[in-house]
Amino acid sequence: MNVKRGYIDCLDEAHPGFSVDCVIITFYDKKLKVLLNKSELINKWMLPGGWVLKDEDVDTAACRILKERTGLDNVYLRQFYLFGKANRTNLDENKAILEAARELTDEKVKQFVTRFISIGYFALIKYEDAIIEDRENDICMWVDLDCIPQLYTDHNQIIDKAIDIIQLLIDYLPIGYQLLPEKFIIPDLRAIYEGILRQPLDKRNFQKKMLASGLITRLDERKVVNTYPHPYYYIFNKEKMEQLNIT
Amino acid sequence: MNVKRGYIDCLDEAHPGFSVDCVIITFYDKKLKVLLNKSELINKWMLPGGWVLKDEDVDTAACRILKERTGLDNVYLRQFYLFGKANRTNLDENKAILEAARELTDEKVKQFVTRFISIGYFALIKYEDAIIEDRENDICMWVDLDCIPQLYTDHNQIIDKAIDIIQLLIDYLPIGYQLLPEKFIIPDLRAIYEGILRQPLDKRNFQKKMLASGLITRLDERKVVNTYPHPYYYIFNKEKMEQLNIT
Repeated sequence: MNVKRGYIDCLDEAHPGFSVDCVIITFYDKKLKVLLNKSELINKWMLPGGWVLKDEDVDTAACRILKERTGLDNVYLRQFYLFGKANRTNLDENKAILEAARELTDEKVKQFVTRFISIGYFALIKYEDAIIEDRENDICMWVDLDCIPQLYTDHNQIIDKAIDIIQLLIDYLPIGYQLLPEKFIIPDLRAIYEGILRQPLDKRNFQKKMLASGLITRLDERKVVNTYPHPYYYIFNKEKMEQLNIT
Repeated sequence: MNVKRGYIDCLDEAHPGFSVDCVIITFYDKKLKVLLNKSELINKWMLPGGWVLKDEDVDTAACRILKERTGLDNVYLRQFYLFGKANRTNLDENKAILEAARELTDEKVKQFVTRFISIGYFALIKYEDAIIEDRENDICMWVDLDCIPQLYTDHNQIIDKAIDIIQLLIDYLPIGYQLLPEKFIIPDLRAIYEGILRQPLDKRNFQKKMLASGLITRLDERKVVNTYPHPYYYIFNKEKMEQLNIT
């Protein structure tokens, strides 16, 4: 797909004035990261997103966008909030985009120079599963959650809201289970919680609480690292997760 | 407003293909109730809802709809889920509605005979605060949550989803506080929880758990009823609610 023209071209087939924005979250090198992309068309960092086709379920559109960007399907993906402020779309900016794409026709102005109502989805994916590839005129990269640059329109607020909601529901969401490999060490699990809760956690209390919850089980195997003592590996207890409705 | 024509007329000023549906919940006579309305135009029971104007925040539209139907503002109102199935709008039905309203023009067909994506809001209101009035060609009434009739399109599912989400978040939402008068008795609070959780609760355990939570305080005053012993009045402990982030 020629991405530079693609978005503008397929506006005709899209549900009008509506978009999907995806906060795709992963964990790598002790940090939570969010996938951002920048197209030559818009030339600002933004969340991966797109339109909903006229005959497409909104959920299906979110899956499609996630697959286009990461190669993944069947991953943890949930809608979390609708962004509907009257002034959330910068109309001048959208007009300039049409101009740059040489598409400044009456019809395209009507379709694109308008407030978009957007539904936010968040996805939790394992770093090594995703295939992140740049395309012609469109680059994609993981950015640390605590170093997000200024994004297109209200996309910074969309990320903040996603984290707020994950924070609120942290005891009901399989955050660690979705982000970590099958065998993991406690410091990585703690780093995920610290990233979401946006505060450092006491090491001993965190480990105690996690073990007491019954959600994780220690293996009789240690990870070989450069410091001593080598940390034990743990796994999630899927039965306990189901019992506690963590799905 | 002539409601029969009103909805169709103001489609021109509305954000295209998008609507707001409100699950307005109250508690009266020991039962949770939901506000339903039926207009001559659509002639099916449905949730109170409407369009979002082009220059209006989606949240503002939800407040406006709630105020139009109940006379209330500044009440507990939250978005809870987006309904975006490709087939959720019955296009034939919408065409018949235009025909009945003698508005079957190309422009109106384009605006109204299309899938609407809808954002669901729920409101928790005190029964005695609301002013529910029928208008010309448009009636409104409270219906017991457990006796909801077959509604327009997917509105039954919208109610079910609202209750599912309130159920999930029951420990974080001020359900009883919003639905009950300032002084209330435990059987009423329990009836609310039973309605949301869709199951009977053990009387003694419920009372014990509520008191242990610190969220309610017993007054030195009893309600005069026909049975003995007369039940004590309780009030909510606002400080404790804030401390537990129940807002």
